[in-house]
Amino acid sequence: MPDQSSLFKELTRAESLYRLGSVSLGRIVFTHNALPAIRPVNHIVDDSGLIIRTHHGAAIISAAVGGVVVAYEADVIDPDTRVGWSVIVIGTARFVTNTEEISRFHRLLRPWVSEPTMDHVIRIDTKLVTGFELVPGPSEPDSASNRQS
Amino acid sequence: MPDQSSLFKELTRAESLYRLGSVSLGRIVFTHNALPAIRPVNHIVDDSGLIIRTHHGAAIISAAVGGVVVAYEADVIDPDTRVGWSVIVIGTARFVTNTEEISRFHRLLRPWVSEPTMDHVIRIDTKLVTGFELVPGPSEPDSASNRQS
Repeated sequence: MPDQSSLFKELTRAESLYRLGSVSLGRIVFTHNALPAIRPVNHIVDDSGLIIRTHHGAAIISAAVGGVVVAYEADVIDPDTRVGWSVIVIGTARFVTNTEEISRFHRLLRPWVSEPTMDHVIRIDTKLVTGFELVPGPSEPDSASNRQS
Repeated sequence: MPDQSSLFKELTRAESLYRLGSVSLGRIVFTHNALPAIRPVNHIVDDSGLIIRTHHGAAIISAAVGGVVVAYEADVIDPDTRVGWSVIVIGTARFVTNTEEISRFHRLLRPWVSEPTMDHVIRIDTKLVTGFELVPGPSEPDSASNRQS
């Protein structure tokens, strides 16, 4: 465990979207049966928004049908150094219905999980994007005394 | 990009809790201002539940005051091999109010982010725990033709 906590630094929208696009895995957050739900999923960032694919039986389907607001989070945080970043998108999730777009995203985005029909493409708009970076903070001279003996 | 998708395998409750306890970083999911919210946070798994710490101004505070149901997710998924696991807890988040317990968790769980007052300890009950593993699946002979040229 390092002897320092990290400092919190906000990222701009552009920095956040750039980092989101630099990774392929995130987590979609939505409401399912009136309970908070979260699922890891792979994504791409397109000019038009954040794109994910899912299968017919997925819980997220009911959210996307209604065009509801979801959250999407991706992060890269090193548990040893405690530095890294996290980006959160809050936006409306909707099915992509244009067949040309669906074909394009089927080529660009290959699901990680082998499901019989990963044929639904969902776009999440990226109107609200926030992000932060954890950067090394000052060392804590008294940290040893705070630890469990 | 590997030539295969992964297969989905459910984990038992015991396997899920074991894996959750093997990592220190997860993401808490709650409702904030009527919108889905998610924050990365570090945790420990205690006999009594999942323990996190937070500061006075954190958005999660309003959820914990009401004793509302939250979700908590942790995962280790390799983007190259596409194998790994994810565990999700759905449970009620409540402040720990017993001063001895608070002191104990302050020693056991050191926040990663340097905040003036990370003095709130929140316990999430682990009644509902689900998890899955992604294991290597069959190779896909036609994968090359599906890729973007």
